[in-house]
Amino acid sequence: MSNATQIVEQLGKWAVKAAHELAVCPTETKNKALRAMADALEKRISEIIASNDRDMVAGKEGGLSEAMLDRLKLNEKRVSAMARGLREVATLADPVGEMIKEWTRPNGLRIRKVRVPLGVVGIIFESRPNVTADAASLCLKAGNACILRGGSEAIHSNIAISKILNETAAQNGIPENAVQMVEVTDREVVKAMARADQYLACIIPRGGYGLIRAIQDGATVPVVKHLEGICHVYVDKDADLAMAHKVTINAKCQRPGVCNAIETLLVHRSVAEKFLNPLLKDLIEKKVQVHGDDTVRKLGGSAIVPVTDKDFKTEWLDLIMSIRVVDSLEQAIDHINSFGSHHSDSIITRDAKSATAFLNEVDSATVYHNASTRFTDGGEFGLGAEIGISTDRLHARGPMALEELTTYKYQIFGDGQIRE
Amino acid sequence: MSNATQIVEQLGKWAVKAAHELAVCPTETKNKALRAMADALEKRISEIIASNDRDMVAGKEGGLSEAMLDRLKLNEKRVSAMARGLREVATLADPVGEMIKEWTRPNGLRIRKVRVPLGVVGIIFESRPNVTADAASLCLKAGNACILRGGSEAIHSNIAISKILNETAAQNGIPENAVQMVEVTDREVVKAMARADQYLACIIPRGGYGLIRAIQDGATVPVVKHLEGICHVYVDKDADLAMAHKVTINAKCQRPGVCNAIETLLVHRSVAEKFLNPLLKDLIEKKVQVHGDDTVRKLGGSAIVPVTDKDFKTEWLDLIMSIRVVDSLEQAIDHINSFGSHHSDSIITRDAKSATAFLNEVDSATVYHNASTRFTDGGEFGLGAEIGISTDRLHARGPMALEELTTYKYQIFGDGQIRE
Repeated sequence: MSNATQIVEQLGKWAVKAAHELAVCPTETKNKALRAMADALEKRISEIIASNDRDMVAGKEGGLSEAMLDRLKLNEKRVSAMARGLREVATLADPVGEMIKEWTRPNGLRIRKVRVPLGVVGIIFESRPNVTADAASLCLKAGNACILRGGSEAIHSNIAISKILNETAAQNGIPENAVQMVEVTDREVVKAMARADQYLACIIPRGGYGLIRAIQDGATVPVVKHLEGICHVYVDKDADLAMAHKVTINAKCQRPGVCNAIETLLVHRSVAEKFLNPLLKDLIEKKVQVHGDDTVRKLGGSAIVPVTDKDFKTEWLDLIMSIRVVDSLEQAIDHINSFGSHHSDSIITRDAKSATAFLNEVDSATVYHNASTRFTDGGEFGLGAEIGISTDRLHARGPMALEELTTYKYQIFGDGQIRE
Repeated sequence: MSNATQIVEQLGKWAVKAAHELAVCPTETKNKALRAMADALEKRISEIIASNDRDMVAGKEGGLSEAMLDRLKLNEKRVSAMARGLREVATLADPVGEMIKEWTRPNGLRIRKVRVPLGVVGIIFESRPNVTADAASLCLKAGNACILRGGSEAIHSNIAISKILNETAAQNGIPENAVQMVEVTDREVVKAMARADQYLACIIPRGGYGLIRAIQDGATVPVVKHLEGICHVYVDKDADLAMAHKVTINAKCQRPGVCNAIETLLVHRSVAEKFLNPLLKDLIEKKVQVHGDDTVRKLGGSAIVPVTDKDFKTEWLDLIMSIRVVDSLEQAIDHINSFGSHHSDSIITRDAKSATAFLNEVDSATVYHNASTRFTDGGEFGLGAEIGISTDRLHARGPMALEELTTYKYQIFGDGQIRE
């Protein structure tokens, strides 16, 4: 048995024990613990900052980019934001115990479908250490123990935060080892977690395509994938062009580095000139690099880079955007289903029939009529915090919040029924 | 690219195309097609029987057991049962398009969570050819295309049935290739299916542990496992012993070869003698081989085989049963959580508090109070037909019927909302 497997086995055993007790933990105990955990993060901020300093020094020596260092950096404001997140999770409704359905059979059996925790959830993530607090708090509220495995560059920060959370939880009525961080950065640990189906109910990876593929290869634990967002706005022939302009700029420029920002704009040929002339001007002013097809290049001139199929499959996460002119709604739908990542896509149109076709036929987790794709988010949906946006189809699709961190069981009440 | 991979790629491409059209197929078209498919099975029974004869001859030559040959055999009665199954599925409510939830956000966005098909479902199964019709009809009704891969011993029967179903579906408004059978029995095809995540939304294996492990190793497609049922009845100290007797006999003997029959009986020490004396007599009369602990052996004498931990983890699927006397409810719960397969477990008690503890703390898909475990079944739950009983925690747990063959999407309606 490799060292990595041994580590995961030990954490797994502890976590299963914790999960078993946590599954029947009263809501008020969980909420009180979450509030105490928030207080502890703020009270013990010097420990966190000291550990973060070690990561920052190592990161600078290791040549991390300025953007990476910024994501890694913790300060008072960022620790307060983590604490605020924990307090917010304490205010959310507890999904555990919710009766999803109840019915009685002709033979008198009363069947209840009841929400219960998943068990032990593995979270594998990169860079930002605030994920430790976010993920731990959501798992705890949903009655799950968690095993966290953060990126090597944030290892000291992650250990410090998880230690404070786990200790404070245990002091407040939560079973020991409800929140565990893998303290070695060996990549083998990721593989060992992915094969620990005896202990883990699922793994939620938060990171790039490479990380997710590395986890999935050889995995026997179900993986709920949070892949990239290649999102689209389609401006239909019957669009309100002022609205389309405003939504496109918002969906691309308001925060280009997130998964629900758009990467590609599709425009119906009959409105292309009228819509694109002012839009291209605006995009170029906003320093957006536009990759366009022939029609777009005719309108935009030399500033437009010729677009390729590869571009259409690229998540830029930056002020870069592909634009294609299409001949029909059907072509737009086909394009999105072929090149998109089934995340978030929007149609701008006044025509209800076109909107219905788009909303039914675009095979994405979230489809919009006359709104920006930027609303695909647990908070914006009103679900409270989220652990990520699932691009999978099974179990959870779209924003993954507390409810998606649970499963269900059937409780059946009889008075001696037997099967004939 | 191996031959198996090529085959799966081709079937996958066709299936994705079919699934895309099937997703928006009206309910009445699907129901009409299902009824026509049922008629066609009955009308073309001679084709089916001729193909089945080839399998039976090969099976006899290959030395299949009598029990296996019986499972393989098709006759008029069994083909009629398949047809009846198809007609029943036509009467079930269509899950596609169901509005699961709808709410409006303060910014005016209206969010609808709507049920949609999974896409392409892979079903990998062994022996009984009736699974072809059952699986195909449930997938079709839920708007999914399916790729079926049956066991080699039933290959000619499976091809004949799937051909009739697929042809008849296509003649009745269903897209071509909605029902496809893998026509080669190469085991490599199973591995290729398990890695075809570009096409398949999930794989549902119906078969033993070996088959499921073979699929899961190296799988990138999510697998919804239908593993064994190691189910329990626990007779509490406050049980109605007459009811406990009746339920135990039913749960063990009524149909021992199915997953929801019990394998182990747990009895509280304080009622052991009073309960077990008549029960053991009855079990021995019914030719049940009992494996018991020391207390049971003292009561039952030499007819009782000493029970081992391995027995407690064995799905006998036969008239064999383990019996253990426990000192407390907690010990019973621990036993079930440690040795069981999280399938179906029942407590017999008059004490509501003990029942609640059992129903909350036993970590199984279906938990019963005062009833036989034999009711874990889509039909008995009132869900209509089922594709199997999931022993997984994600997506589907317990009976997997039409609803569990779907996922959801969010459709969001705005009037130009952008994110600030």
